[in-house]
Amino acid sequence: MQTALPELLRKAVAESVRLGDRLLVAVSGGPDSMALLHLCRGLPYQVLVGHVDHALRAGSAADARFVAEQAHRLGFKAAIQRVDVRRYARANGLGIEEAARDQRYAALSAMARRCGCRAVLTAHTADDQAETVLMNWLRGAGPAGLAGMPPARPLEGGRVLLRPLLEVQRMDLLSFLKSQKGISRLDPTNRNTRFHRNRIRRVLLPSLLQAYPGLSGRLGQAAAIFREEEGFWRETIGRKLAKTVRKNGKNQLIDLTRLFGYHKALGRRILRHVLPGLSFQELERVFALARSPDAADSLHFGGGLLVARKGDKLIIQQSQRNS
Amino acid sequence: MQTALPELLRKAVAESVRLGDRLLVAVSGGPDSMALLHLCRGLPYQVLVGHVDHALRAGSAADARFVAEQAHRLGFKAAIQRVDVRRYARANGLGIEEAARDQRYAALSAMARRCGCRAVLTAHTADDQAETVLMNWLRGAGPAGLAGMPPARPLEGGRVLLRPLLEVQRMDLLSFLKSQKGISRLDPTNRNTRFHRNRIRRVLLPSLLQAYPGLSGRLGQAAAIFREEEGFWRETIGRKLAKTVRKNGKNQLIDLTRLFGYHKALGRRILRHVLPGLSFQELERVFALARSPDAADSLHFGGGLLVARKGDKLIIQQSQRNS
Repeated sequence: MQTALPELLRKAVAESVRLGDRLLVAVSGGPDSMALLHLCRGLPYQVLVGHVDHALRAGSAADARFVAEQAHRLGFKAAIQRVDVRRYARANGLGIEEAARDQRYAALSAMARRCGCRAVLTAHTADDQAETVLMNWLRGAGPAGLAGMPPARPLEGGRVLLRPLLEVQRMDLLSFLKSQKGISRLDPTNRNTRFHRNRIRRVLLPSLLQAYPGLSGRLGQAAAIFREEEGFWRETIGRKLAKTVRKNGKNQLIDLTRLFGYHKALGRRILRHVLPGLSFQELERVFALARSPDAADSLHFGGGLLVARKGDKLIIQQSQRNS
Repeated sequence: MQTALPELLRKAVAESVRLGDRLLVAVSGGPDSMALLHLCRGLPYQVLVGHVDHALRAGSAADARFVAEQAHRLGFKAAIQRVDVRRYARANGLGIEEAARDQRYAALSAMARRCGCRAVLTAHTADDQAETVLMNWLRGAGPAGLAGMPPARPLEGGRVLLRPLLEVQRMDLLSFLKSQKGISRLDPTNRNTRFHRNRIRRVLLPSLLQAYPGLSGRLGQAAAIFREEEGFWRETIGRKLAKTVRKNGKNQLIDLTRLFGYHKALGRRILRHVLPGLSFQELERVFALARSPDAADSLHFGGGLLVARKGDKLIIQQSQRNS
């Protein structure tokens, strides 16, 4: 497996990137991303290192210096960007983990734009994928959540985010880093099991993997099927949307005769697309309203969202006032 | 919740059964099915008790007598059927758990036919559903496995299997049994954690439920969405199948021009339908063969299954010789 890693990376990148393109490799300084950086030495592209300083711990600036030094030692230029996660979390009502992720991807995308990089590479492994799927599953996610992280997704400006190691076991990546005599820094935040993902990574997943060997590979395979089917749904919804939903000023009108002409699963997918923030139970209430013969009914949800039925139309109104 | 249980059962049954129909209640003698039996006293139908003696333990005949006595005490007639699980498992190359389940449902269906019952009721709870989904998920199941048990499914002869308590927590069912001063017998097999399901029931699920309260409800909801989408896929595959696959003597021919005209997710679903026994990797090899320009290629799988490509057709041949 170890000797095959450089070849695996080369192939995965070549699927989305042309010769002559520049790559930005996201490096936290942890072992996975340091291994990816060592692997990138074999790539026939100009590679830059991007590091996001989340500034959540006192040691974070030292991590940034470590990454810059290591990049230099390996012959890469490095870009560092500091973000204010706590402020962003407060401003958007998000948890720290979610805010950090949003900020990280935004910063990497901006760095890629500034450096003229066509792709951003991350070091996510099959273990990260299993964690993501397990975490979503424990939240009660449906098919979209179980699709996990895609190996490639578009960023703004025609750029692309690549996760070329998504089918590689972390163990193999760490062996590779060792074989290269590479060093890394451990983020102490990763040891804090108050964070949901860390609890899954350090407590639940290891015990599951011990009891069910091969689980992470199986989860990854199932995720690939879910991703494929999510693609099918996007295409199918896209085809039906224009016929079923139309804008009327600030409102959206759903044609219920058409909606109920589809299989209920497709109807639910279309409603989810139009009303992305609603829970399963809230969506069930919308279905009940849509089926109700009483034209006067309407539903109020958080954020000033109003759903009302009028004849064979469902009216979706997003008021700014109550938001 | 407790006082609402009889009403919940009445409603769930009334969706599938008409007044005047007879019901067969599957009773193992354990607490869940004994609670269901007590609940059935309030139903406006003629109710019979069906018990399957799996004859896997010395005490199984005593369980059957216990169920017959309890049924009598509560005013129900009881039918007992003994099955030979070990022989069936050997003859069909199945594990004991799987063979027991097959035999149990076959026996219940046969009893319902003999007794003129329109529906078979089982006492599966939200906890059983969570177990099933968790077990399938650990096996790496895709959407179909995560759909869990349906609340209703057809049996032969226009009969129906109902699981009216599939959204009820086991805890609430046990409280109801206690409130009725009902008694039950514990199947000691359920305590044997060598069985996969028991390990999940007694070790993994309790620890997950403690760490993630509300998990079983969330899994049940996700399962409902998966079931709905499985229904969509069955309908969609049914519509495309006649155009895409045709029989040619003992062989099946798949029209690859049509197959590749569909989204890959639908193509995979159709191939899965035609080749139900193949693993994810085996199906990937079939896809690769289907895409290959080399007309001479063919694939041999276990059980004498041959898949070959000829022009724009994929030929599926099931030979008896090698099976």
